[in-house]
Amino acid sequence: MQNSAGGFRFAVHHTDAHSQARHASLQTPRGTVELPAFMPVGTLGTVKGLDMHRVRETGAEMVLANTYHLALRPGDQTVAALGKLHAFTGWSGPILTDSGGFQVFSLAERAEVSEQGVKFRSHIDGAALELTPERSIAIQENLGADVIMAFDHVVALPNTPETVATATWRSVRWAERCRQAAGRPDQLLMAIVQGGLDPQLRRECAQELVRMDFAGYAVGGLSVGEAPTEMYRMLDATVPALPEDRPRYLMGVGRPQDLLAGIARGIDMFDCVMPTRNGRNALVFTDQGPLRLKNAVHAEDTRPLEADCPCLACQHSRGYLRHLFQAGEMLGPSLASLHNLTYYQRLLRQARTAIEQNAFTEFHQEKLRGWGCPSEADGPAPPSQREQR
Amino acid sequence: MQNSAGGFRFAVHHTDAHSQARHASLQTPRGTVELPAFMPVGTLGTVKGLDMHRVRETGAEMVLANTYHLALRPGDQTVAALGKLHAFTGWSGPILTDSGGFQVFSLAERAEVSEQGVKFRSHIDGAALELTPERSIAIQENLGADVIMAFDHVVALPNTPETVATATWRSVRWAERCRQAAGRPDQLLMAIVQGGLDPQLRRECAQELVRMDFAGYAVGGLSVGEAPTEMYRMLDATVPALPEDRPRYLMGVGRPQDLLAGIARGIDMFDCVMPTRNGRNALVFTDQGPLRLKNAVHAEDTRPLEADCPCLACQHSRGYLRHLFQAGEMLGPSLASLHNLTYYQRLLRQARTAIEQNAFTEFHQEKLRGWGCPSEADGPAPPSQREQR
Repeated sequence: MQNSAGGFRFAVHHTDAHSQARHASLQTPRGTVELPAFMPVGTLGTVKGLDMHRVRETGAEMVLANTYHLALRPGDQTVAALGKLHAFTGWSGPILTDSGGFQVFSLAERAEVSEQGVKFRSHIDGAALELTPERSIAIQENLGADVIMAFDHVVALPNTPETVATATWRSVRWAERCRQAAGRPDQLLMAIVQGGLDPQLRRECAQELVRMDFAGYAVGGLSVGEAPTEMYRMLDATVPALPEDRPRYLMGVGRPQDLLAGIARGIDMFDCVMPTRNGRNALVFTDQGPLRLKNAVHAEDTRPLEADCPCLACQHSRGYLRHLFQAGEMLGPSLASLHNLTYYQRLLRQARTAIEQNAFTEFHQEKLRGWGCPSEADGPAPPSQREQR
Repeated sequence: MQNSAGGFRFAVHHTDAHSQARHASLQTPRGTVELPAFMPVGTLGTVKGLDMHRVRETGAEMVLANTYHLALRPGDQTVAALGKLHAFTGWSGPILTDSGGFQVFSLAERAEVSEQGVKFRSHIDGAALELTPERSIAIQENLGADVIMAFDHVVALPNTPETVATATWRSVRWAERCRQAAGRPDQLLMAIVQGGLDPQLRRECAQELVRMDFAGYAVGGLSVGEAPTEMYRMLDATVPALPEDRPRYLMGVGRPQDLLAGIARGIDMFDCVMPTRNGRNALVFTDQGPLRLKNAVHAEDTRPLEADCPCLACQHSRGYLRHLFQAGEMLGPSLASLHNLTYYQRLLRQARTAIEQNAFTEFHQEKLRGWGCPSEADGPAPPSQREQR
């Protein structure tokens, strides 16, 4: 199953026999991304604490940058003057930019929504700004990512059914305006399914967007503090309404167990600040569950974080990594972020292999056991994992 | 001219025809260092903001770590338990540790000196501690560097002649105790010439230490705020009193022009936090003088810092690097530090080549012209460039 347009081509290579998990790929003018994929978040044109060569060494094939943040600082015109995102960041592979929808509602001050768009104040200097579907596309064209996103109206959850429905249908109308505004053959535009925590509304939103025929579909407005089981329920409602021959992207997710839960339901793409943000906070992922590096138990531990991990952090002892955090050295956050991104990329690579072997479900269960998670949704609801500031 | 002991061998390959500048090498059990050399400072077992692979890519062959800092945090016993400095830091080449003498007088609180040693309080938690010549050597043995330094009594400058003389002759007696205490064949011990800003005292101190026959000699107690011309005058007094067949190390120096002034006077080794500290503060070195990356003039400048520099920072535009600093991204300090260390290593490599061609003086003048320095001591007296905290 495949779908081509411009220099893009999406192909599903194999769907797991016992789940919706699928091994696919997205070919872009700047390289091919094996799916399911995890995209490291490079909010301001840098994956925090790492140069792009190190990011590449983790196995990442595609990175994300944030439209809202870059439009404010240094400004999309400046990024364009400096050669657009690929030249700016030094990342030569595919890049995805979000639309600014999520941040304008979560970060900006005094946001006022109308059918036209959103007026708001910069969270940095209070400057009066406006984002509309057309302006979001124009900024994303200045930034020059390979995959761009429709501008959507995101509401906080929980919320009244009326508020959620109004924002959802406005997002659909805005998606159409984005489709009209986006004209570059070298940028693939994806729409975003909204609908809060209402399965019926999610389904209807997806159906309406699918009628408009986008090159890909994202599930948005999740990972904002709701219970993981709620998020999975929304995927169960939404994914079956999406076409099989287009990439599916779960925005801002998530924990390792959330990635596997998403993959099991047919999601192809993920992004999240968790590996880098947790890394900066001395929390590292392993197949035996997370380690808190500041704990005294690691002080004289000569073992690496993981014996079989090829990352630079795992060339050091846990004791050294703990020392870096205790001493406030920048290398601590850098190495922990590097390990976590390497861990995520390995997890996705293993997932793709398991899918090819029709063994995704066993793989999924085995990982959950290793992490000490009795069920796929185990653990407290994570806080919002989207990049904020 | 050469001198061998244990796995160490110092050899002078060529002395410039028109200056005291010399191309030499120091062979150690962990590799050979071409001299003159600049050692990046890895105070707490990390060159701030960079992993050791990146440090190696700058061309560095030897790094420095600080005894005082590591003894306090994580403790030399912990470093030993984690495999000593090479395993701890991941730097497999030669490492030098200072003795803690400089820091205990500049950083520690309530230092009380006696002939036995120094009692002081940790600048981190106020804990009561003591450093003596024997204890400094024991710590340096636990740390396991290849080159270690004698424990010296450093006084602030300017100071009374009596205070300077007392500290200088105490340093000589302590050097003898260090020589008695140091027993490992895989560690080369260097003595430190003190004497404040008194040329006669410097000369006498050097002569006395040379009589004791150390494997190498450092010039200490400089780069603490005195005028560069004063520092150079002390080198003029000291270096002729040192044997030609032993390495000479100017501690805690310095600016690019100070390195060349030292090389011209026969210095072989340098260390300084300036390239990394300035890098963290967005100041980068170039052959046309320093650039302040926060200046608005760089905002849309697509040029690299230097067109011919192979470092990762120079794969980016000045505009991107400025953006990283404006946005407070960790990658800014990392890349600027990387560039500055690369710049220093290139400068030393060029100096070695110029010496081989008997062209060091022309090289020296050309660099000063490029930097806009009318004389070798140009520019305001730099603040202390030694690692403090």
